[in-house]
Amino acid sequence: MGLFSKDIKTMDDLFVNQLQDIYYAEKRIVGALPEMVAKATSPQLRAAFESHLGETRNHVRRLEQVFQMHGASPKSATCPAIDGIVKEANEVAGEVADKTVLDAALIAAAQAVEHYEMTRYGSLIAWAKALGRNDCAQVLHQTLEEEKAADEKLTSIAESGVNLRAA
Amino acid sequence: MGLFSKDIKTMDDLFVNQLQDIYYAEKRIVGALPEMVAKATSPQLRAAFESHLGETRNHVRRLEQVFQMHGASPKSATCPAIDGIVKEANEVAGEVADKTVLDAALIAAAQAVEHYEMTRYGSLIAWAKALGRNDCAQVLHQTLEEEKAADEKLTSIAESGVNLRAA
Repeated sequence: MGLFSKDIKTMDDLFVNQLQDIYYAEKRIVGALPEMVAKATSPQLRAAFESHLGETRNHVRRLEQVFQMHGASPKSATCPAIDGIVKEANEVAGEVADKTVLDAALIAAAQAVEHYEMTRYGSLIAWAKALGRNDCAQVLHQTLEEEKAADEKLTSIAESGVNLRAA
Repeated sequence: MGLFSKDIKTMDDLFVNQLQDIYYAEKRIVGALPEMVAKATSPQLRAAFESHLGETRNHVRRLEQVFQMHGASPKSATCPAIDGIVKEANEVAGEVADKTVLDAALIAAAQAVEHYEMTRYGSLIAWAKALGRNDCAQVLHQTLEEEKAADEKLTSIAESGVNLRAA
């Protein structure tokens, strides 16, 4: 990305730019999830993080597929948003003394990640459709559905006891 | 927040910590929205940003109310997540040459902000309920509903023509 040039001239450029952003983010999450597994106490939460790690590796591969379908090479662009979300998660987790409270904090941190991904995939899908690329939209949609399901799973873990034990 | 101390010992501490985080975020958004109004071309989008600026000022006041209800003084804690999301929005906007493509990028940026707020309010509401503070949950819930409505409004503006004009 050029700091002093306006490199995004078309909707197609914006689409590729945001693909690069979420590609960076997904790889960052692959790196962050094992640490979250290690910090979690609830076996249900650990299992959810582990299962989402497998899904996230698959999201990276799907993005590579979309880059290729679109005739672009897979490339990452630093994504300050996910860097900020992960930084905040680490900061908060580092301040929590109690294990059950830490589980509640980890769930909130993971849900912030999921929501960031949901919004990015939502925009990418809308743009792919506007560009007449329903094929790309379809692949991205599979990931969006998994992100939504991961978010709902975390809500149900929080409600099934983590929050009340922590309180 | 103490960098080397574990200051969050209870769910109550976590609740106040995250109130401070979203209080910082809402005030950051009050600062960022006028710039987004200035950059937007679609009159519908400008109006949506302007109306959400008014709502956001009210969200700040509601948070002050929740701090007080909870017996804490309103205080901000730096929120690297919103800083990252706003930084990314500015970076992308700075790279877009075309006005209609810029509108599409601004909508995506604003929806990333909305999604961050939705996830934070969602956690805060769940924690308030677990802490037996349905009164705080109720006030926070009013804001959550407005964030969701703002997000849906942006989707409808994107779909009503911005994306297609940009493509």
